[in-house]
Amino acid sequence: MSTREDGRADDELRPIKITRNWLDHPAGSVLVEFGRTRVLCAASASEGVPRWRKGSGLGWVTAEYAMLPAATNTRSDRESVKGRIGGRTHEISRLIGRSLRAVIDDKALGENTIQIDCDVLQADGGTRTAAITGAYVALADACAKLRVPSALTGSVAAVSVGIIDGVPRLDLPYVEDVRAETDMNVVMTGDGKFVEVQGTAEGVAFDRAELDALLALAEKGCADLTRLQREALELGG
Amino acid sequence: MSTREDGRADDELRPIKITRNWLDHPAGSVLVEFGRTRVLCAASASEGVPRWRKGSGLGWVTAEYAMLPAATNTRSDRESVKGRIGGRTHEISRLIGRSLRAVIDDKALGENTIQIDCDVLQADGGTRTAAITGAYVALADACAKLRVPSALTGSVAAVSVGIIDGVPRLDLPYVEDVRAETDMNVVMTGDGKFVEVQGTAEGVAFDRAELDALLALAEKGCADLTRLQREALELGG
Amino acid sequence: MSTREDGRADDELRPIKITRNWLDHPAGSVLVEFGRTRVLCAASASEGVPRWRKGSGLGWVTAEYAMLPAATNTRSDRESVKGRIGGRTHEISRLIGRSLRAVIDDKALGENTIQIDCDVLQADGGTRTAAITGAYVALADACAKLRVPSALTGSVAAVSVGIIDGVPRLDLPYVEDVRAETDMNVVMTGDGKFVEVQGTAEGVAFDRAELDALLALAEKGCADLTRLQREALELGG
Amino acid sequence: MSTREDGRADDELRPIKITRNWLDHPAGSVLVEFGRTRVLCAASASEGVPRWRKGSGLGWVTAEYAMLPAATNTRSDRESVKGRIGGRTHEISRLIGRSLRAVIDDKALGENTIQIDCDVLQADGGTRTAAITGAYVALADACAKLRVPSALTGSVAAVSVGIIDGVPRLDLPYVEDVRAETDMNVVMTGDGKFVEVQGTAEGVAFDRAELDALLALAEKGCADLTRLQREALELGG
Amino acid sequence: MSTREDGRADDELRPIKITRNWLDHPAGSVLVEFGRTRVLCAASASEGVPRWRKGSGLGWVTAEYAMLPAATNTRSDRESVKGRIGGRTHEISRLIGRSLRAVIDDKALGENTIQIDCDVLQADGGTRTAAITGAYVALADACAKLRVPSALTGSVAAVSVGIIDGVPRLDLPYVEDVRAETDMNVVMTGDGKFVEVQGTAEGVAFDRAELDALLALAEKGCADLTRLQREALELGG
Amino acid sequence: MSTREDGRADDELRPIKITRNWLDHPAGSVLVEFGRTRVLCAASASEGVPRWRKGSGLGWVTAEYAMLPAATNTRSDRESVKGRIGGRTHEISRLIGRSLRAVIDDKALGENTIQIDCDVLQADGGTRTAAITGAYVALADACAKLRVPSALTGSVAAVSVGIIDGVPRLDLPYVEDVRAETDMNVVMTGDGKFVEVQGTAEGVAFDRAELDALLALAEKGCADLTRLQREALELGG
Repeated sequence: MSTREDGRADDELRPIKITRNWLDHPAGSVLVEFGRTRVLCAASASEGVPRWRKGSGLGWVTAEYAMLPAATNTRSDRESVKGRIGGRTHEISRLIGRSLRAVIDDKALGENTIQIDCDVLQADGGTRTAAITGAYVALADACAKLRVPSALTGSVAAVSVGIIDGVPRLDLPYVEDVRAETDMNVVMTGDGKFVEVQGTAEGVAFDRAELDALLALAEKGCADLTRLQREALELGG
Repeated sequence: MSTREDGRADDELRPIKITRNWLDHPAGSVLVEFGRTRVLCAASASEGVPRWRKGSGLGWVTAEYAMLPAATNTRSDRESVKGRIGGRTHEISRLIGRSLRAVIDDKALGENTIQIDCDVLQADGGTRTAAITGAYVALADACAKLRVPSALTGSVAAVSVGIIDGVPRLDLPYVEDVRAETDMNVVMTGDGKFVEVQGTAEGVAFDRAELDALLALAEKGCADLTRLQREALELGG
Repeated sequence: MSTREDGRADDELRPIKITRNWLDHPAGSVLVEFGRTRVLCAASASEGVPRWRKGSGLGWVTAEYAMLPAATNTRSDRESVKGRIGGRTHEISRLIGRSLRAVIDDKALGENTIQIDCDVLQADGGTRTAAITGAYVALADACAKLRVPSALTGSVAAVSVGIIDGVPRLDLPYVEDVRAETDMNVVMTGDGKFVEVQGTAEGVAFDRAELDALLALAEKGCADLTRLQREALELGG
Repeated sequence: MSTREDGRADDELRPIKITRNWLDHPAGSVLVEFGRTRVLCAASASEGVPRWRKGSGLGWVTAEYAMLPAATNTRSDRESVKGRIGGRTHEISRLIGRSLRAVIDDKALGENTIQIDCDVLQADGGTRTAAITGAYVALADACAKLRVPSALTGSVAAVSVGIIDGVPRLDLPYVEDVRAETDMNVVMTGDGKFVEVQGTAEGVAFDRAELDALLALAEKGCADLTRLQREALELGG
Repeated sequence: MSTREDGRADDELRPIKITRNWLDHPAGSVLVEFGRTRVLCAASASEGVPRWRKGSGLGWVTAEYAMLPAATNTRSDRESVKGRIGGRTHEISRLIGRSLRAVIDDKALGENTIQIDCDVLQADGGTRTAAITGAYVALADACAKLRVPSALTGSVAAVSVGIIDGVPRLDLPYVEDVRAETDMNVVMTGDGKFVEVQGTAEGVAFDRAELDALLALAEKGCADLTRLQREALELGG
Repeated sequence: MSTREDGRADDELRPIKITRNWLDHPAGSVLVEFGRTRVLCAASASEGVPRWRKGSGLGWVTAEYAMLPAATNTRSDRESVKGRIGGRTHEISRLIGRSLRAVIDDKALGENTIQIDCDVLQADGGTRTAAITGAYVALADACAKLRVPSALTGSVAAVSVGIIDGVPRLDLPYVEDVRAETDMNVVMTGDGKFVEVQGTAEGVAFDRAELDALLALAEKGCADLTRLQREALELGG
């Protein structure tokens, strides 16, 4: 019997919604929803690569993550107004970029750049994992539009897991996230391998058994997300 | 017979859609659409006012406008990454703030701050006028939620007008905007008075007769928008 | 009978002084005075254009406006020290640039850049309109020195108008400006056409009749300024 | 038989050197060396806490990481000169801060702040793990000097592990780091629990067995480092 | 027989002009001219002192130096636009501040701040020495207006000296400055003592005899400037 | 009989230590110690010169100075975190660069750049003079490694002098520096000529006799430092 506020089982994802082509301009775009968390992912393609990569014959995929001021419980200041990007934003942008590059064949992409933008319209926990999961679908659409489907060597999805009151749980909303003793974000490929494992003790260090339980939960969640990504992509774009 | 690409009459607005409560957290929030232009407007309320206004008994309404990178035809760089806000962004933020303050009674608002955020999710011309029109509705919802409905002294709406190939037209999409000889943004109150008139000759200076024609068109457009705002607010929030 | 503090008629400009060649280095330079308002306008010419315009055969005119810290009643902080340019500065710089480009034939200018600098040495209202009016004269001198007089397709001047205690008035000094219910800056060509119309309700929205009265006043003021510009240019440089 | 360039066994740390009191001014300071990697760690104590924590009765520990320009193979630009801190620096500063806070009892610390500075004098891989390992010792010295030894609830150490040519290895120097297929930084408490696990696939995703092997190696390395920290602290400060 | 381009003797100042009260708003203001070099100096007084000096009973004098873009031969970029102040500007601002504080009795000034702004309108060598010389006069006027004449403990003036083709010369214009082998700026009090001596070899190191010759020249120049300052101040302000 | 806290004679340097090759990566590196002041000087060589010098056949030497946060009595904020470099840092960086360029033959260096980094690890007065003295040795090593020994036209060293309680003293530690009435930094070549003389009255202006006494003291100190530099360089690098 679940004790989660939203009635989910401990190993159950929130309702996931992947809406493709939400925008007119970018090559790929997805509005992804993990429960109340809503992230707009865009994949903009352009010819050419950054200067340091020119002439290499290789493509480039990079990502930027940001949050609208009104996305959070209490309005947060705009980073453009503060004139500097915070450490958390940097960290997540880099994570998204690395995750997507894990399934990109730079050579097959050719000297093209795909710029991923993940803008959180509403935040309720798990924004970075929703961003990665949605961005993969936008990236797939962009590769298709660029007519370089072979640039994608696999799929990638991400989920958060955590221990709340001693119980490991999948896909934490904000109310669980703030109470978690341990919090882990896991990025996996569609064939069940790990791309990123980022576990953090919040207050209490965790032992190996807890780590193993969280990893198992994450494997389950990423498998579910992989299936949902595939279904979304099978529908006509 | 219209010669506009989208088949509209010269004095006709694009399809306007005002969706209230698009977000969970802010006191008021609206997704406003002028055709393909889509702006997310949030009105976040907080107790207290900026330092320079403390103890005055007066409230404060301010606004920030921004555009998502993938909102435009060609991706535009993120201002937070550039580390500085461009002149255009500043200009529009200030315009939105002034426009909304024109219908706010600072005393009735009391020492509360309402922060308006207008984030352009997709741009197809007229983003600033859509922002003002939508932000007014979000502001009205925020005043209601704060239980200070009397802080609103009227309504405000905005529309763009321009002369294309010698013909004055209402509510320009991007394709018309770039071709306009003269471009004007007009902000009006619900009872037909002017709050802002910003006309700019693009290449060719305009004469008084043209100016008068544009003003008449704007009066018509703002009246239509005022009606649509009222209808949106009459629906249960 | 005038009720203005400085004894002027409502449709009368302040004493205007246009001193050419105030600086040794730039191609054109003007110290322009609208009463106590004093703006130093320089037009620096250089070969070549910004990268995005190279090879187009077209020239480029751009402007920067700034205010010395001690120019105002109460000293204002230096924007270079703050490390960022404020919205008002951006807005006025852009306005000056657009106004001057309205009378420039980019093709006749050739691939040259004219950079306009308008630095307010002393501020007493109307700094942006004085800046435009003076900058035009500096620009004319620069075009002459560059031997591209045909790059100028006309002249441009600007003036502020406003409604104080219900009375429309021309060329507002600071004491009137802060009391104005409505404030409008109008930029016009020498042949009486509009380049920019920027009207703002300060607190009270204005109706069409008031707008018309202000426009008429501005037409009168710009015509006077056009004459003074011509006289200044007719004197040997 | 080892195939590592420096002759180490796969599960062997580089020569570790912990020199306490390297600086005169801060409450604690350590020059820590992991082979050729050399990090200067300082723990500066000050009374009071940041504004948002005032009156809570709780202390605050925070960290900043930086690299001297000449620390790396090829000189890297100074972040103060660039005017902005890079994402990597932010990320590591946050990691160090979280790691140390995991063994701090905020209440026992009282309203005091300990600022940790980790400056990399020379970089040869593993700078962040050396920084955490050294910073813990500086922090312990600072707590002793502040006479709040009970603020420390345990010890913390960190090590990098990675898979090179299919072989899991401990404590990677730069030459191994750049060749690693998978790279993981692990922070553990002195009693063998996990504080942070950050694993990243570089190019090739890793499976669960590889992850397990890396974790085992990290457990061994952190236990060794814990012993070396204890020995360093047992010597008279 | 002089060989200076402008016909001056080697120990002769350029024509010096000190115009007081050039601005309406600040407590003291001076347009100072050293030949073609023209610097606008303003001394703005305000009650109170910076936070770190509050409650000390002591006043504060500080200075900012800047150059208008069109002041130089070739237009220089605006520091506010670049978003950062250059090293040279910082250096000169600090020099001016220190020089003026050398003749200020902080106690007699009381908890008031005088902010000096020196803006170079036109540059032809010696801008920093002209700035100090003019700023002193503006400061004296500000002290008089604040009714704290006793806050001034003496006067201060500054001049540049240099060796050109082996000949020591006083008060270098730009054409001499760029050719100088050694360049020295000297700030002295009215009673002939040194406040600052800043000598720099440009390419060739200088010996003690050359240093002595330059110091003698500077003593002569500062004495002349002191007399001119006194004359300017004796005229009704 | 000396009255200095550390027992030195008034014209005696603190213990000076010059440790070459303190770092593995840069072409030259020195840890220089003037008593408790400890500065790490690195000379990084790279092919090519900045854009504005390309094709000139000339080399370029430039310097950056910085201080670690924990180097000072009370921790100072990191300039990279503040996002801007302070005036003092700029000033010293420029001083170091000019001083070293005084003994460089740009032509003999060829189109190579040597970047000097002086990072103060611990500060106890005289950090800029220690930096110059140490940087020269690092520069000499870099020229040797680059096989352009002839690029060095001489040696350069620097020392601080000051008047404390009316007595001129050499090489001031922090406790003397804060009490000095006059403070002077002098940079000299190995053959006894002046490169920079920077004297500042702290509160009390100084007369010519005091200036002469300080210069004599500095000549003595620089001669001693020159000898120590030579000895350090004569040891095998």
